Amino acid sequence: MKTDKKLLWKDLDRRKLHSCRIFDLYEVKRLSPVGRERSFFLLDAPDWITVIPVLKNDEGTECFLMVEQFRHGSSKLTLEFPAGIVDKGESPEKAALRELKEETGYRAGKITALGTVSPNPAFMNNLTHTFAAFDLSFVSEQNLDDDEFIHFHLVPVATVEKEMGTGRYSNGVMMMALAFYNRWKMVQG
Amino acid sequence: MKTDKKLLWKDLDRRKLHSCRIFDLYEVKRLSPVGRERSFFLLDAPDWITVIPVLKNDEGTECFLMVEQFRHGSSKLTLEFPAGIVDKGESPEKAALRELKEETGYRAGKITALGTVSPNPAFMNNLTHTFAAFDLSFVSEQNLDDDEFIHFHLVPVATVEKEMGTGRYSNGVMMMALAFYNRWKMVQG
Repeated sequence: MKTDKKLLWKDLDRRKLHSCRIFDLYEVKRLSPVGRERSFFLLDAPDWITVIPVLKNDEGTECFLMVEQFRHGSSKLTLEFPAGIVDKGESPEKAALRELKEETGYRAGKITALGTVSPNPAFMNNLTHTFAAFDLSFVSEQNLDDDEFIHFHLVPVATVEKEMGTGRYSNGVMMMALAFYNRWKMVQG
Repeated sequence: MKTDKKLLWKDLDRRKLHSCRIFDLYEVKRLSPVGRERSFFLLDAPDWITVIPVLKNDEGTECFLMVEQFRHGSSKLTLEFPAGIVDKGESPEKAALRELKEETGYRAGKITALGTVSPNPAFMNNLTHTFAAFDLSFVSEQNLDDDEFIHFHLVPVATVEKEMGTGRYSNGVMMMALAFYNRWKMVQG
């Protein structure tokens, strides 16, 4: 599909309104396709990663390693794949391995990139990268910041597939990750 | 799974920093599970809807009706399902029917709720509701705000399934919607 110029806006100016640690709030002035000036509010944010750790439990059932934590936006406990922010100068893959280790104490022998998408192109400029992690071994305690409180659980893949997007599995970003995982699985055959 | 009190934070105080039309920025003070005070930045936002319009093209191929538009966060053109904000006092279903009509001129004879999830519980307090729309008829021109420029296209379902999360299909919120749709389809059999 060709780019339709009738849909494109032109950047005029931008101004930072607030620094919020995990993002900066900007007001951006743009010129519409028909030449009208408008302003929009945007979040300038670092890229994110989600890592789907795949391993068997003691009964030999294929599981995902999920983290349970309080989420400050929804004020709810969620069950999610380990996830976090890509540090400055860090590769998304390194960030995925680091977050996995910090949040669960597990090290991955193998990591596979599954896909990258904009978590919300309407008002965010960042990307979220999804990985799957295999050959997992528990190597150390969690390594959490002093405002992080995270439990982790092995949950059968079948349960996560069924429950994702409901109840505790209420983080939509994890639906993006699981969709990338399922497409990758299908391609593997 | 029972709620683990060791993971819960307690609200202390909140303060609005900025009104940004489609969300308000807040700073919230909370008490951690071990009694330390921390502040977090949150977006207070209205709920969103996404509506997946299902219809056949002239060749009888099952298609989704997709909208093409410039996204101000990513500064890119995207192909998405029609989507928008639930107005004050409006039901999510009404919002879905309204957005579909405004963005494409199509009216739905039948609409089905597919699921509701938090688009980002880490720093947003809102929910996004997904619907599928059927029995579609083109009843009028688009009805767009004067800063909206949207084209619409019939895209075969097979193409969207294959491309979602890549190229122009780069809005992660649409991956949430498609995941809800595919689960609903599977349950229908």
